[in-house]
Amino acid sequence: MRPTVVRKIQRADSKVIATLGEHGVATVHEALGRIGLLEPAIRPIYPQARMAGSAVTVLCPTGDNLMIHAALSVVQPGDVLVVTTSTPSTDGMFGDVLATSCQALGVVGLVIDAGVRDTAELEQMGFPVWARAVYSQGTIKAAAGSVNLPVTCAGLAIRPGDIVIGDRDGVMVVPRVRAEEAATLGEQRRDREAAVRARLAKGELTLDVMELRRLLDDLGVVWVD
Amino acid sequence: MRPTVVRKIQRADSKVIATLGEHGVATVHEALGRIGLLEPAIRPIYPQARMAGSAVTVLCPTGDNLMIHAALSVVQPGDVLVVTTSTPSTDGMFGDVLATSCQALGVVGLVIDAGVRDTAELEQMGFPVWARAVYSQGTIKAAAGSVNLPVTCAGLAIRPGDIVIGDRDGVMVVPRVRAEEAATLGEQRRDREAAVRARLAKGELTLDVMELRRLLDDLGVVWVD
Amino acid sequence: MRPTVVRKIQRADSKVIATLGEHGVATVHEALGRIGLLEPAIRPIYPQARMAGSAVTVLCPTGDNLMIHAALSVVQPGDVLVVTTSTPSTDGMFGDVLATSCQALGVVGLVIDAGVRDTAELEQMGFPVWARAVYSQGTIKAAAGSVNLPVTCAGLAIRPGDIVIGDRDGVMVVPRVRAEEAATLGEQRRDREAAVRARLAKGELTLDVMELRRLLDDLGVVWVD
Amino acid sequence: MRPTVVRKIQRADSKVIATLGEHGVATVHEALGRIGLLEPAIRPIYPQARMAGSAVTVLCPTGDNLMIHAALSVVQPGDVLVVTTSTPSTDGMFGDVLATSCQALGVVGLVIDAGVRDTAELEQMGFPVWARAVYSQGTIKAAAGSVNLPVTCAGLAIRPGDIVIGDRDGVMVVPRVRAEEAATLGEQRRDREAAVRARLAKGELTLDVMELRRLLDDLGVVWVD
Amino acid sequence: MRPTVVRKIQRADSKVIATLGEHGVATVHEALGRIGLLEPAIRPIYPQARMAGSAVTVLCPTGDNLMIHAALSVVQPGDVLVVTTSTPSTDGMFGDVLATSCQALGVVGLVIDAGVRDTAELEQMGFPVWARAVYSQGTIKAAAGSVNLPVTCAGLAIRPGDIVIGDRDGVMVVPRVRAEEAATLGEQRRDREAAVRARLAKGELTLDVMELRRLLDDLGVVWVD
Amino acid sequence: MRPTVVRKIQRADSKVIATLGEHGVATVHEALGRIGLLEPAIRPIYPQARMAGSAVTVLCPTGDNLMIHAALSVVQPGDVLVVTTSTPSTDGMFGDVLATSCQALGVVGLVIDAGVRDTAELEQMGFPVWARAVYSQGTIKAAAGSVNLPVTCAGLAIRPGDIVIGDRDGVMVVPRVRAEEAATLGEQRRDREAAVRARLAKGELTLDVMELRRLLDDLGVVWVD
Repeated sequence: MRPTVVRKIQRADSKVIATLGEHGVATVHEALGRIGLLEPAIRPIYPQARMAGSAVTVLCPTGDNLMIHAALSVVQPGDVLVVTTSTPSTDGMFGDVLATSCQALGVVGLVIDAGVRDTAELEQMGFPVWARAVYSQGTIKAAAGSVNLPVTCAGLAIRPGDIVIGDRDGVMVVPRVRAEEAATLGEQRRDREAAVRARLAKGELTLDVMELRRLLDDLGVVWVD
Repeated sequence: MRPTVVRKIQRADSKVIATLGEHGVATVHEALGRIGLLEPAIRPIYPQARMAGSAVTVLCPTGDNLMIHAALSVVQPGDVLVVTTSTPSTDGMFGDVLATSCQALGVVGLVIDAGVRDTAELEQMGFPVWARAVYSQGTIKAAAGSVNLPVTCAGLAIRPGDIVIGDRDGVMVVPRVRAEEAATLGEQRRDREAAVRARLAKGELTLDVMELRRLLDDLGVVWVD
Repeated sequence: MRPTVVRKIQRADSKVIATLGEHGVATVHEALGRIGLLEPAIRPIYPQARMAGSAVTVLCPTGDNLMIHAALSVVQPGDVLVVTTSTPSTDGMFGDVLATSCQALGVVGLVIDAGVRDTAELEQMGFPVWARAVYSQGTIKAAAGSVNLPVTCAGLAIRPGDIVIGDRDGVMVVPRVRAEEAATLGEQRRDREAAVRARLAKGELTLDVMELRRLLDDLGVVWVD
Repeated sequence: MRPTVVRKIQRADSKVIATLGEHGVATVHEALGRIGLLEPAIRPIYPQARMAGSAVTVLCPTGDNLMIHAALSVVQPGDVLVVTTSTPSTDGMFGDVLATSCQALGVVGLVIDAGVRDTAELEQMGFPVWARAVYSQGTIKAAAGSVNLPVTCAGLAIRPGDIVIGDRDGVMVVPRVRAEEAATLGEQRRDREAAVRARLAKGELTLDVMELRRLLDDLGVVWVD
Repeated sequence: MRPTVVRKIQRADSKVIATLGEHGVATVHEALGRIGLLEPAIRPIYPQARMAGSAVTVLCPTGDNLMIHAALSVVQPGDVLVVTTSTPSTDGMFGDVLATSCQALGVVGLVIDAGVRDTAELEQMGFPVWARAVYSQGTIKAAAGSVNLPVTCAGLAIRPGDIVIGDRDGVMVVPRVRAEEAATLGEQRRDREAAVRARLAKGELTLDVMELRRLLDDLGVVWVD
Repeated sequence: MRPTVVRKIQRADSKVIATLGEHGVATVHEALGRIGLLEPAIRPIYPQARMAGSAVTVLCPTGDNLMIHAALSVVQPGDVLVVTTSTPSTDGMFGDVLATSCQALGVVGLVIDAGVRDTAELEQMGFPVWARAVYSQGTIKAAAGSVNLPVTCAGLAIRPGDIVIGDRDGVMVVPRVRAEEAATLGEQRRDREAAVRARLAKGELTLDVMELRRLLDDLGVVWVD
C-alpha cells in the first residue's frame, strides 16, 4: 500500500467535544462502559495539562518524524495530533518547534506513543502533551508513513476524527459516532456522583449510599471484632 | 477461609504517630535499622503529599473495589487505607468519591498497590495517595476479600494497626509494637544528622566528620594526582 | 587493579560550560550530531532542576556510598557528581546530608544511576538531582570503588572532566575536548530554530519552511481527500 | 453495545494458510512490507511451537475466561484463538482442560495477551501457545465480552479471519484480504534469500552480493587501518 | 533485632509433600482457593525443573550470600531453600558450589528472588532452581541476615516449614497447617479435571460440560451470524 | 566525526581465548574481580549457545543494519560481532542470511543489544547469539555508523579486540590486555572450586570449608532452636 495522507476527515461537534473535555477522562470512560483508555504508561508532561479535540492520526517509521510535518498541513483548529511509530520507541520526535506550529494552526494537544523534548518550553507555552517518555533523542525526516488512517496507539485502536480527551489521569478516546451519547452519559454520571459525594461528605457510608451491605452478606463476608 | 472483616484493631498512640510523620520516611527507615520500605514503584500522586496513620489493611480481588467500601465502615480518624490486590493490577480502584468519604471519616491517606484516578481532584482536596499507577480503568463491586487481616503490599508484609508513613520519598511501615522505639530513635537520628549538616555547611568534609579516611586506607584506596 | 581516587582532572572553560547549560540538553544533543544522552529512565527529581558542570565520576559497589564521600574531597566549585554502581540498583545512596556538603563545596548537581532520598529537602535546598529512582533504602560505607576513572553510567561512557548538562529533558554529556565546538554549534542551532519558530508562529507550514514537500513526493506519498 | 458472539466469519483458503505457515513469521513480515507483528513480549511457551490458522478473536474482561468457552462453540478446524483482555493482565486464563477441547475441535493454536498455565502438559500435547506470561493464577467465569469482533492484541489490530502465523520468532498477522498476495510475495522472498545465502555460504560478502559498497561511499564512510 | 538463625522448624508429612508435588502448582493453587503464587517473574532455569519440599527461609542483605551458607547448616533432607534479599537485586547469589552442598545435604531445590549462575551445570546436576534472573554477578560474604524467620519473597509471605511446590508453571506455597487439606483438595480437583477432559476429548463443548450456556444468556450475550 | 570503519585491530592469542571460553562466564568474571558483565537482559537464544572470540564492535543507527554488513568485510576467523544501536531498540537486525555469511567467514558468534530473528534456523546452524529480544521487525540499510570504535553495549564499555565470552549464564568481556592474566586466574579459581566441591559433595558444610563460623559470630548472629 502506498503511503497516504488523508486531507479531509469528519469531526464531531465542537460543543460536544468541549463538554467531553470538561467531564474528563475518568468520568467519560465510566459513562461509556469502561472503554477507550490508552495504556497508563502514557503520561502528561506537566500536571495541569488538559485538552479535548479531534484526532488527526499519524503513523511514523520509528526514529522519523516527517509525517508529523505532513499532518500539520491538514489539521484544523481544535484538532489533537495522535502519533504512533511502527515499532516501540522513546525517541524525542516532537519539541518546541513543532509545538509553535501546532499552536499557530490551532492544534490543542499531542498524544504520542514515543518520546518528547523541550518539555520545560512546552509547559511554558501551555501546549499539553501526553507521551511515553521524555527524551531528547533526535529523529530524522527521511521515510514515509501515513496521516489520517486508522492506527493502534498505546494499545488502543483510534480512527481519525475520534474525540481524544487528556487530563492528569491520562488519555481516553471516544469513537466519533458515540460523541453525543458520551457527552450525555457523562453529564448523567457527573450528576449522580455529585449527589453521592454530597451524602458522603456528611459522613454517610458508601455501604449505605450504594446499598452494598446485602451484597457483602450474599458473598458470605464475616464481620468479627 | 471465609472472607472476613475485622472491626477492631489496636492502634499506636496518636502523638507517637504524629512524631513519626514529622521525621519522615528516610529518617525512620534508617532509625529502625533500614527496614520497612515499600517498593520504589509506589509513588505519591502529588509532590506535597505527606501523612502518617494507622494501617487499615484491605485485600481486594483484582479489578474489584468492594472491600474498600467495607473497610470504610470500620475506620477511625487517623487511619490510613492500605490496599492490595490478589494479582498484579493497575486498575483505578479509587477516586474522588471514595476520597470524599475518607475525608469525612477522618482517614488521612491511601497506599494502594494498584491504580488511582481523579488525581487532579485528589490533590485539590488535599487527600494524599501513594499508588503504583495513575489509571482511570474502572472496577466492579462483585467479589469478597478481607479487611484488617495481614497483607503483603508492594513487597512488604503489613499488619493492621502498623504505622504507615508517606512522603515524597515513598512509603514505609513501622510495626505497631515498635512505634515508640521508632519515634525515639528517629529523634536521635534527626539530631545527629542536624549536627553533622551544620559542620558540613561550614565546609568540613564527611571524610573528617564521619571519620572515613582510615577506612579508605584500610581498603587500600590509592590517591593519585 | 587497586581502588583509586584521581585527585586532579582537566576541566573545560567555565564560560563555555555556562553557555552549554543555557542551550540545554536537547539543543546541544542535536548540535553535536545526536550523541551523548543518558537513558530516559534518568529523571530530574523536581521539574525546575537545571545545571551544567564538570563530571567528577564515582563508581560505587552496589549498596555502598563510601566513594561519594571520597569524591567530595577532590571536587571543585562547578563540578557535577556522576555516580554509578557495579550492578543495577535503586538504593537511596544520596540525601540531604551529602547535598549539604555538596553545596558547601560548590558542587552544582548530581547524576546517579541509582536511587536518591530526602527529595523534598533537596528541592527546598535547590540542589538538582537526576536519578533512576526515588527510594529511601539506606546504604553502607564498607567497600572501595573509584573516583575520576572513566565510567559507564545509564548506558553512556563518561570521562572525568566531561561537561554534564541536566534539565527537565534529562541529562547529556559533552566530551571535554568538544566543549567549545558544542557551544558554538549550539548557538548556531538556537539561532536557526528561533528563526524557524518565528515563521511558524505566523502560520507558515514546516513543509514550506523546511522544504519537505519535494521529499514527500519523492517518497511516493499520496494525498487524498 | 451488548456483548456479542459472531458465529460465522470468512476464512482464507487453507492451502494459502499452510503456505504462509511454511514461510514463517520473519519471511512473511518482510514480504508484506514489514507489518503485522505482535509485540516481542508475546513468546512461545516451548521452542518448537509453530502454527498458522484463521483468527477467532476473543475479548475477555480481565481475570475472566468465560468468553474463551463461548468461542469454542463457534470454531472450525484450522482456527487459532486470539485472546485479549480489557486491561493488562498476566492471569493464567488457559490450561490443559481448554487445550483438550481445542484439539478435539481442530483448533491449531492460541495467541493470548495474558498468562497461560499447565505449560508442561501443553507441550506434551503438542498444543502451541504464544503468551505474555506463564502464570497459574486462576480466573473466573462471570462476565461477558465478545467473540469475533475486531480486537487490539499486543499492540496490533486483528480482525476475525485474519491469518495468524506463529513460530519461535513470535507472532504475525496477515489481513485476510492479503493472504494470497502474502503467500506469493513470501515465496519470492524465500527464493531470493536462498540464492543470496548460497553465494554467502561460499564466502562472498554481503557488501558485494547486495551491492552496498556504493552506499557506504555515498554516506561518507571512511575506511582506516 | 539481632540477626538470627532458627535451627529447628516444624515440617509437614513427607508423603503429603510428595502428593502436593505430583499435583503441581496450577492444581494446588486452584484447590486451595487461588492463593499462594509467587510473582510470574520467578521462572525455572530449565523446563524440566520440578520439586516439592519444606521451606527453609533465608533473608540476605543485597549482594551478600553469607546467610545461605548459614542456612545449609540447619537444613534437612527434603528441604527447599527460599532466599530473598533486603532490596530488589539480580545478583548471582547461588551457583554450582552451593548446589553441590545442597545435593549432598538432601536439599531438593531453590527459590530465589534474585539471580543465579552456573545454570548449565545446575541443569546437568539436576538441581532445580526458580529465580528472577540468570546473572553471573558475584556476591560477598560480609553481613548478617536471618534464617527461618518469616519472609516476603516475590510478593508472597512465607513461613519456615511451609510447603514449596515448583514446576514449569512457576512456584506456589502451601501454608504448613493446610498441607493435608491441600493434598486432599488437589486430588479431588485432579479427578474432576480428568473427567472433564475425557468428555472434552470426545468433542463435547465446555459450554455443555460446565453448563455455561445459561450464564451467557443471563449476561445478555447476543449470538449473531 | 565522520563515520568510520577500522579495518585492523589487535587480537589476543587464540589459545588464551579458547581457555577463557572453557572457563565460562561466571568463573572468569569472578577471577578478574567481578567485572565485565553485560546486563542480564542479554540472553542466549538457545540454551546450548557457547562461544569465545575477539570483539569486532559495530554501532548502528537504530533500525538500520548497514554497518553489520560493513563489519563482515573486516572480520577474521575467531571474531565475535558486538552490535549496539544509537538508541534503545528491539528491532530484528540479524537473521539467517547474515549468519550464513558469518559462518562462511569464521565469525563464531553475535552479541547484540537489540533484536534477532530466524532463531530456529540459527540454532539449527549452530550459530550462537545473545540478544535483548527475539523480534522479526525488519531493518533498513540507509545510514552510517561505525565499526571497530569503542562502544557501550548493554551497560558495558567494550573495545575492539576485547575477548567476549558467552554461555548460558550470559555474556562477559575481558579487556584484551588482561586476557592472559584472566586465563591464569580462571584456571586457579576453577581448581580451587573443584577442591571445594569435592569436600562439599562428601557432606562437609561451607561454614567449615570456607571458615565462615567465626564471621557469623563476629556479626552477632544468634542461633536459636
